Amino acid sequence: MRIKIINPNTTQSFTDALQKLADKVARPDTDILAVSPASGPASIESFYDEALSVPGVLEEIAKGDREENIDAYVLACFGDPGLYAARELTDKPVLGIAEAAFHMAVLSGACFSVVTTAPRVRFMTEHLVSRYGFGEQCKKIRTTPMRVLDLANSPDEAIAKVVAECVRAREEDHAEAIVLGCAGMSQYREYIEQEIGIPVIDGTVAAVKLCEAMVDMKLGTSKVLTFNWPRPEMAHPGRQLNIA
Amino acid sequence: MRIKIINPNTTQSFTDALQKLADKVARPDTDILAVSPASGPASIESFYDEALSVPGVLEEIAKGDREENIDAYVLACFGDPGLYAARELTDKPVLGIAEAAFHMAVLSGACFSVVTTAPRVRFMTEHLVSRYGFGEQCKKIRTTPMRVLDLANSPDEAIAKVVAECVRAREEDHAEAIVLGCAGMSQYREYIEQEIGIPVIDGTVAAVKLCEAMVDMKLGTSKVLTFNWPRPEMAHPGRQLNIA
Amino acid sequence: MRIKIINPNTTQSFTDALQKLADKVARPDTDILAVSPASGPASIESFYDEALSVPGVLEEIAKGDREENIDAYVLACFGDPGLYAARELTDKPVLGIAEAAFHMAVLSGACFSVVTTAPRVRFMTEHLVSRYGFGEQCKKIRTTPMRVLDLANSPDEAIAKVVAECVRAREEDHAEAIVLGCAGMSQYREYIEQEIGIPVIDGTVAAVKLCEAMVDMKLGTSKVLTFNWPRPEMAHPGRQLNIA
Amino acid sequence: MRIKIINPNTTQSFTDALQKLADKVARPDTDILAVSPASGPASIESFYDEALSVPGVLEEIAKGDREENIDAYVLACFGDPGLYAARELTDKPVLGIAEAAFHMAVLSGACFSVVTTAPRVRFMTEHLVSRYGFGEQCKKIRTTPMRVLDLANSPDEAIAKVVAECVRAREEDHAEAIVLGCAGMSQYREYIEQEIGIPVIDGTVAAVKLCEAMVDMKLGTSKVLTFNWPRPEMAHPGRQLNIA
Amino acid sequence: MRIKIINPNTTQSFTDALQKLADKVARPDTDILAVSPASGPASIESFYDEALSVPGVLEEIAKGDREENIDAYVLACFGDPGLYAARELTDKPVLGIAEAAFHMAVLSGACFSVVTTAPRVRFMTEHLVSRYGFGEQCKKIRTTPMRVLDLANSPDEAIAKVVAECVRAREEDHAEAIVLGCAGMSQYREYIEQEIGIPVIDGTVAAVKLCEAMVDMKLGTSKVLTFNWPRPEMAHPGRQLNIA
Amino acid sequence: MRIKIINPNTTQSFTDALQKLADKVARPDTDILAVSPASGPASIESFYDEALSVPGVLEEIAKGDREENIDAYVLACFGDPGLYAARELTDKPVLGIAEAAFHMAVLSGACFSVVTTAPRVRFMTEHLVSRYGFGEQCKKIRTTPMRVLDLANSPDEAIAKVVAECVRAREEDHAEAIVLGCAGMSQYREYIEQEIGIPVIDGTVAAVKLCEAMVDMKLGTSKVLTFNWPRPEMAHPGRQLNIA
Repeated sequence: MRIKIINPNTTQSFTDALQKLADKVARPDTDILAVSPASGPASIESFYDEALSVPGVLEEIAKGDREENIDAYVLACFGDPGLYAARELTDKPVLGIAEAAFHMAVLSGACFSVVTTAPRVRFMTEHLVSRYGFGEQCKKIRTTPMRVLDLANSPDEAIAKVVAECVRAREEDHAEAIVLGCAGMSQYREYIEQEIGIPVIDGTVAAVKLCEAMVDMKLGTSKVLTFNWPRPEMAHPGRQLNIA
Repeated sequence: MRIKIINPNTTQSFTDALQKLADKVARPDTDILAVSPASGPASIESFYDEALSVPGVLEEIAKGDREENIDAYVLACFGDPGLYAARELTDKPVLGIAEAAFHMAVLSGACFSVVTTAPRVRFMTEHLVSRYGFGEQCKKIRTTPMRVLDLANSPDEAIAKVVAECVRAREEDHAEAIVLGCAGMSQYREYIEQEIGIPVIDGTVAAVKLCEAMVDMKLGTSKVLTFNWPRPEMAHPGRQLNIA
Repeated sequence: MRIKIINPNTTQSFTDALQKLADKVARPDTDILAVSPASGPASIESFYDEALSVPGVLEEIAKGDREENIDAYVLACFGDPGLYAARELTDKPVLGIAEAAFHMAVLSGACFSVVTTAPRVRFMTEHLVSRYGFGEQCKKIRTTPMRVLDLANSPDEAIAKVVAECVRAREEDHAEAIVLGCAGMSQYREYIEQEIGIPVIDGTVAAVKLCEAMVDMKLGTSKVLTFNWPRPEMAHPGRQLNIA
Repeated sequence: MRIKIINPNTTQSFTDALQKLADKVARPDTDILAVSPASGPASIESFYDEALSVPGVLEEIAKGDREENIDAYVLACFGDPGLYAARELTDKPVLGIAEAAFHMAVLSGACFSVVTTAPRVRFMTEHLVSRYGFGEQCKKIRTTPMRVLDLANSPDEAIAKVVAECVRAREEDHAEAIVLGCAGMSQYREYIEQEIGIPVIDGTVAAVKLCEAMVDMKLGTSKVLTFNWPRPEMAHPGRQLNIA
Repeated sequence: MRIKIINPNTTQSFTDALQKLADKVARPDTDILAVSPASGPASIESFYDEALSVPGVLEEIAKGDREENIDAYVLACFGDPGLYAARELTDKPVLGIAEAAFHMAVLSGACFSVVTTAPRVRFMTEHLVSRYGFGEQCKKIRTTPMRVLDLANSPDEAIAKVVAECVRAREEDHAEAIVLGCAGMSQYREYIEQEIGIPVIDGTVAAVKLCEAMVDMKLGTSKVLTFNWPRPEMAHPGRQLNIA
Repeated sequence: MRIKIINPNTTQSFTDALQKLADKVARPDTDILAVSPASGPASIESFYDEALSVPGVLEEIAKGDREENIDAYVLACFGDPGLYAARELTDKPVLGIAEAAFHMAVLSGACFSVVTTAPRVRFMTEHLVSRYGFGEQCKKIRTTPMRVLDLANSPDEAIAKVVAECVRAREEDHAEAIVLGCAGMSQYREYIEQEIGIPVIDGTVAAVKLCEAMVDMKLGTSKVLTFNWPRPEMAHPGRQLNIA
């Protein structure tokens, strides 16, 4: 099967890292295609960044169905930007990495905490937790004093902060699993897990494995009502905005 | 003061109706500027339509602050598309018409129902109700078998359906106020209220009056964390997407 | 229009301060009439105080409709004592200052904390937050070690305590706006806001502006069910208790 | 022990019925004293009625502690009017009949419905259910097209309506117990239970038995914070309002 | 009346202590029979321990109805193991000590905290609090660094830890009552209450008194649906498992 | 990998059907071992049945880890009996079919309804939905007038009832996916889905695929706190009860 991972920001090094990571965890018969949109924000750290990344994400979904024979999609940014809009454009599974991570976390531990980047994404993350129904199981959203791109520029320092926050989650929140709140942390998952000794969930991995499961189950996006197809004249997202 | 009403769809007749309506309810010292974006969907009836309308909405916010000396903004589509992103782009008040309507409804009646357009917006509306904290006070979301543009094309028939649903809300849900779930219904508010005999809230009117209140209070958007300004290189939404 | 502010306690200096404050924020065409009941508690710091203040509040509502040509009412005590009972006595808008403050706070910031007086009002305030639907958006209720009348007797010391608690709200709760939890703090709002640098909402101001908005909208109290008129023989609250 | 039942309305026939009923269910060593306040509404069917009944209720609490050697108090009106205020005036147990009924109902059945009087009390009852934490266990609040005093004036017809509504609760709500939502229904509890074949809880009986339990446990009202004593100058509720 | 207290673990010294304690609080006309099952875990500190204690508990219920003429049952372990299963086996009241304690706590104080044993029971206790509807009224679940059997082996040290945690509950959680989260703490209730000065609720006592109340009210377990009798061939729990 | 499916009841025909079904959906490299315990109830339709099935379930978990080299466990009864207890006995993944089905359903549709067997399991199912956090996404629990064993004895009639209820879920609840609420329905999933035209989720399939995903991710049960190992002397569940 073919799974397309859409990194909604335009930082190619992140996209490359996601391709590498997903290749490692995918089944032998799964093909991974990791891409970023042609235009949009370099990193996504606010509702505004998210909003501007969505048209590019939708373009990639439309292209995936039209030209690339994709079986399932992963939106690889922890805010799950454009998730519901993307589900309208296809009948394949579309998974956000935040939702995927939450679902897997509660199958492992009795509760979890999220460790994420800069403080301003707290409210956005609270929304996701609450909208997806994990309000009781998520003990705390812990932000760290760093920016998304610090993960690329000074990874050692950034990851040390993440580990410190994970320890606090285990000790103070009594978290039994950790959800990493940024796709930029994906490649450090294993290291962090070894440091703190409890399961650490990365959303991209979780989403790839859930996509494989859904494709095996022939379970796509339900088109009966909310995620029904767009009106025909709307089918090309880029043309709507004169960007494709 | 100057209030800019942004109709996120490109149907000019709706924009004109909003201008006329708002002119009637605004205070004498309030100037209303109703606009639609240059590009985007003709009507907004799904998450996908919303997503594609947001870049245009953001352009209008940026322009409002940059060139038009605006004191407050109203997003005149019941899904409040791009509300949080818009709040990052300005320190002026930005109100969605759904949130405005809900706030005013609970100050009038003990509970309310929403009467809106086609069934597929139910889930989207549930999200808004729940995210804004009106889950207990909103008794029911009632959809009608019609499309947004029916309100322009065959208004008599469309409004008859709305009135019928409002009566059911009053009788079956015990709703004590009605929130109209579509900006296209705004101009019929008074008529509907007379027909059903309980307060009927239109979000555009509610948002204009709340904007006036906030400007009088010198209360803008809090910039301390979540709605802090975008990174400087992100300040032109259109340029990010090569659409301006 | 004429707005009547009812200070449910009998401390005239608070009533005078409310009159002065409201005169400053009201529109030129708005007339403010601030009163206290003839009898009742000198300050309201418990459910018991509230209960004893309500008959006096209701008397003032009845008088307002009967003799004073009032367009809207504000109950200027943070517990919103007698709010629902008052709404039964009139078809005009009746707003409590707690509810008004909460509504305005969430239109400005992503979340807020309440800073109020003595610890024993915590439970009462939790009730209001939860009943009005602000449970997720209110991050914390912070009490200060003082009594309501300290605000009149040693304001400098009292306000210093309030400011210190507001700073904690901003730093520890990540609150993006502050709601002042006592009408006695109203006159210090501006000073506190300057000290802490995030929006500070005073309920009396918020309620006055919301009343103006509702009167402009011709939106009163819905009389269809819950807030329907009292039985005719009950129309004079004071006579029921032989106090008028 | 001595339990004082305070009927907050002034209809003596209801008070007499409560005395009779409670005498039957109380333990041999329990003394019941059922009273109504000197002034106040004849029946309680709205927030307004409640508000006007509270000063009289508080007078009876104060008198009970001062002169009557009471061990526990029951507020025998389904809205539990003045419950928290009453708890401040005494360190004895004070139970409302709504809360008492809800607590006993969930110890018997997996869920319950409330069957009460006129539709306008629905919102008031929802508040109680939600404030006390029974939101998931209470399946439905069912009102009947009648007034409280119909229970005194045309009991046969009124009780037939109640039974019909109880049957609907059992069949349509899948309720496993019924809570009677009005003290005026107390004397018909046994008959209704026989008619519908599932447990029917009357709040007055429930409250009397819970008072006996609490007195045996030496468990009174916690005075540590919320329900601490009123300020000394406030100790006579009636004098505050010049009604005693 | 005869109340059977089932200690679900096999530690006879706990059972003896429960018998003694219950004898002291029961009414003169109440007979207490405290037992432990023939087999099962020595203490219950996890879901696994609970699961293995349930067949023994059910055997004791079946025997109680069959041979011992029991009027009501108390499950004396704070996890309320097998509560709903037990209710299917009898039409008498069956109360868990956790639920009983929560119900009594909120009739005394505005809110409470639970103080219990080892950290691993936190999640289990959260479940109970939330399932029974006490999520808002329970301020915190406080665990102590000890095992259940420490209460038998080194009671002084263990109880000192409990008292210290209760003080934190009063000061930091603003708890107005304490619920003891382990039947092994029952005999120290009075001492702890004296130390901390706010009501301390022991579930065994609470359950015994609630049983007396229910038996007086002729209120048993509703058999209409959820707790209906097992299929006849299932009536002997032990035989199902070849253990009786 | 080896996945063990534990059918908690002793009806071998159900176990055989589960083996066959799982063999069909498992990956080629996945080995399925479907078993039922040696003793326990023939079907599980109540809390009592569940309680008696749990020791057998735990025996199978212990045996799986001890002798059968199992990588993951599925509890194939919709009540997820003994799920948390089972998680303490192993560090492998253990999934209940109810939780698995809910997780997969919300990745496909905006909301779902459960269609299950006899009415008495409604409360039990509500518990699961609410405990797992699906309270907002689950629109309704629909029971059918049948017993679990009807699915074996008169499948045509039983499945016709299920289909009828699914249609109601789609039309009246606006459900966008269906969760089948009984392992006995698993083999009819495909047929039902064809009949109603929206995704139908069977929990056994969902659980097998989620187990595969978790094993690939090396994600087991978090042992840090709640699901830590039993005390050593407790390691043989059957011996605790003298049944093994």
